[in-house]
Amino acid sequence: MEVKQILHMNKGNGETSYAKNSTVQRKTLSIATPIIEEAVLQLLGSNVMGIESMGIADLGCSSGPNTLLLISQIMDAIHAKRSKVTELRVSLNDLFRNDFNSIFLSLPSFYNKLKQDYYNNGRDPNLFISAVPGSFYGPLFPRKSMHFVHSSFSVHWLSQVPDGLNNKGKIYVSKTSPQCVLDAYSMQFQKDFSVFLRSRAQEIVAGGRMVLSFMGRPSSDPTADEGTFYQFELLGQALMAMVSKGLIEEEKVNSFNIPYYASCVEELELVLEKEGSFSKDRLEAFGVDWDTDGIDLDLNMLERDDQLITSSGQRMANSIRVVTESMLEFHFGKWVMADVFHKYAELVSKYLSNRTTIPKFRVFVISLVKKN
Amino acid sequence: MEVKQILHMNKGNGETSYAKNSTVQRKTLSIATPIIEEAVLQLLGSNVMGIESMGIADLGCSSGPNTLLLISQIMDAIHAKRSKVTELRVSLNDLFRNDFNSIFLSLPSFYNKLKQDYYNNGRDPNLFISAVPGSFYGPLFPRKSMHFVHSSFSVHWLSQVPDGLNNKGKIYVSKTSPQCVLDAYSMQFQKDFSVFLRSRAQEIVAGGRMVLSFMGRPSSDPTADEGTFYQFELLGQALMAMVSKGLIEEEKVNSFNIPYYASCVEELELVLEKEGSFSKDRLEAFGVDWDTDGIDLDLNMLERDDQLITSSGQRMANSIRVVTESMLEFHFGKWVMADVFHKYAELVSKYLSNRTTIPKFRVFVISLVKKN
Repeated sequence: MEVKQILHMNKGNGETSYAKNSTVQRKTLSIATPIIEEAVLQLLGSNVMGIESMGIADLGCSSGPNTLLLISQIMDAIHAKRSKVTELRVSLNDLFRNDFNSIFLSLPSFYNKLKQDYYNNGRDPNLFISAVPGSFYGPLFPRKSMHFVHSSFSVHWLSQVPDGLNNKGKIYVSKTSPQCVLDAYSMQFQKDFSVFLRSRAQEIVAGGRMVLSFMGRPSSDPTADEGTFYQFELLGQALMAMVSKGLIEEEKVNSFNIPYYASCVEELELVLEKEGSFSKDRLEAFGVDWDTDGIDLDLNMLERDDQLITSSGQRMANSIRVVTESMLEFHFGKWVMADVFHKYAELVSKYLSNRTTIPKFRVFVISLVKKN
Repeated sequence: MEVKQILHMNKGNGETSYAKNSTVQRKTLSIATPIIEEAVLQLLGSNVMGIESMGIADLGCSSGPNTLLLISQIMDAIHAKRSKVTELRVSLNDLFRNDFNSIFLSLPSFYNKLKQDYYNNGRDPNLFISAVPGSFYGPLFPRKSMHFVHSSFSVHWLSQVPDGLNNKGKIYVSKTSPQCVLDAYSMQFQKDFSVFLRSRAQEIVAGGRMVLSFMGRPSSDPTADEGTFYQFELLGQALMAMVSKGLIEEEKVNSFNIPYYASCVEELELVLEKEGSFSKDRLEAFGVDWDTDGIDLDLNMLERDDQLITSSGQRMANSIRVVTESMLEFHFGKWVMADVFHKYAELVSKYLSNRTTIPKFRVFVISLVKKN
């Protein structure tokens, strides 16, 4: 499976679209906002090369209401700071199958809104938005063309499924996976993240900055914290339920693994140090509920509302569906997707109903500075 | 009607898609190729600012087999010339509703092909392709970021339908249109083309070059040459036939005009001189058959094959359909399009069957150099 030619968030605006099911990503962006603002303000206050024509990039921009938020935030900072930036070059990057058309459709109203908000005084910078399709595990932009690079909820996607996994009945690192599965995932992540940093190091000017938000885990043991892996445990169970029903061959599940990795702090720091192009300004970890519109599970079991738990499970299942369906569909076929995710929602609801707290993803936000 | 928010070539790969019905555009590109190559070679041989990181733009790139041809041609020239270009920044521009997604889907195989053709020796430049949605009647790119700008079959689209037209039963300048209709179209074109040149003048470095191909007419009288306007005369007749059938209200046709203008050499030279940022290297005119897969009409009437004429009319109608349907649909409604274009094909076939030669569009190719 060529990840870069297949992976994309679900398109359009329907019930199972990314645009309608990306509240976890939106929550993450709002958590990262103060760190993004801090980085941008420090950048604007500095004297890095060519900041008059400021290049910014959003890697893994996807499509939907979150995509253009970052630009507004950065325009706000430039506006507030009365900086010397005269041109803002914004590059929106995602893989080849991302729904760029729907981003572009929203641009005319976005430009009109900006005009109302900013351009009355004639002082704010000219904005140039472009789309750059391609994998961020490799060169994307001309040398030294970028001042600020942002990526939210993307760097946990690997460039490929690690080679030679033997992970029967599972689709990600699981409690019963052999150690070599974790090792292969960890090595793939380290290799990919290193390529990512090296690619950006070519593109970002000295003193330029990068803020990355992505899924992580709190401990070096990948299965110590259920919030950070159990969503794929349950998705694996949903697929195996299809095997029991005779809808999917077991071999198909055995040969499928998610090109995704929730790293730990030690791995991140190791790669950052070894690669060496960036210094770390901040690294913070946040918990984000699996279902951000979620229920409070911390209740006496007797007071619980099954209806609420079921709808929470459904939302959670949708939020995983919109990011994984392109790959599952490619491997298992489009026809079985409705059944898989129906079962998945059921399993998530059941899982939630046995817990006293709602599980949390662990999100890392790192702020990096390009060294000289 | 906000042209920049509505106009787009028909999407996808179906029977009435632009991708399947753009042989006139392809033919035009092949006619312009020697002029493009000459301009690029002169540019590569010159010493213009920052050519190591060469910026090129294709304005009105559309989608389909023609879109990436230009990039291959320019890569060929760079390769042959063994130039000092190390980075090739390519910006593909079109309006907000253009089908950029389908361009991006074709990029992985395009990159693979380039790799095979060029990158064996490690000498060829890095290629960065981006999409820039927006109207070319205004700023699109950062200041002095472009070295070569190309536009094929686009500059004849106006930024808007001229204001206050009184052009009953017609949709473009016609033999029976009052003089004020021609004047309004001519003024709109001159205004738009001037804005176009002024916008590019900001973006192109001194000594940078621009090659534009677009529809024109051979004489100052806009209805002297049927090849250059009669396609819209017939489309107007098809719409009026819908009025006769009671499918469309006459008032709807009266209030519709095409935001298109085939200019004459005098108008072009007037605007170029008045705007003043570019000097003219070449201006050439070519005839391109309405139906490039066309039949030879120059036959004894007795030998003619009605079947061939009908299929030629159908192809011609499709080639106009794929560029005008977005606007017609917006104004008249989707439901009536099949009927309109069925009638249109009939009218074109009938028109062809009464002629002894196939009509020709007049295509201008201008090669311009940005002054110091």
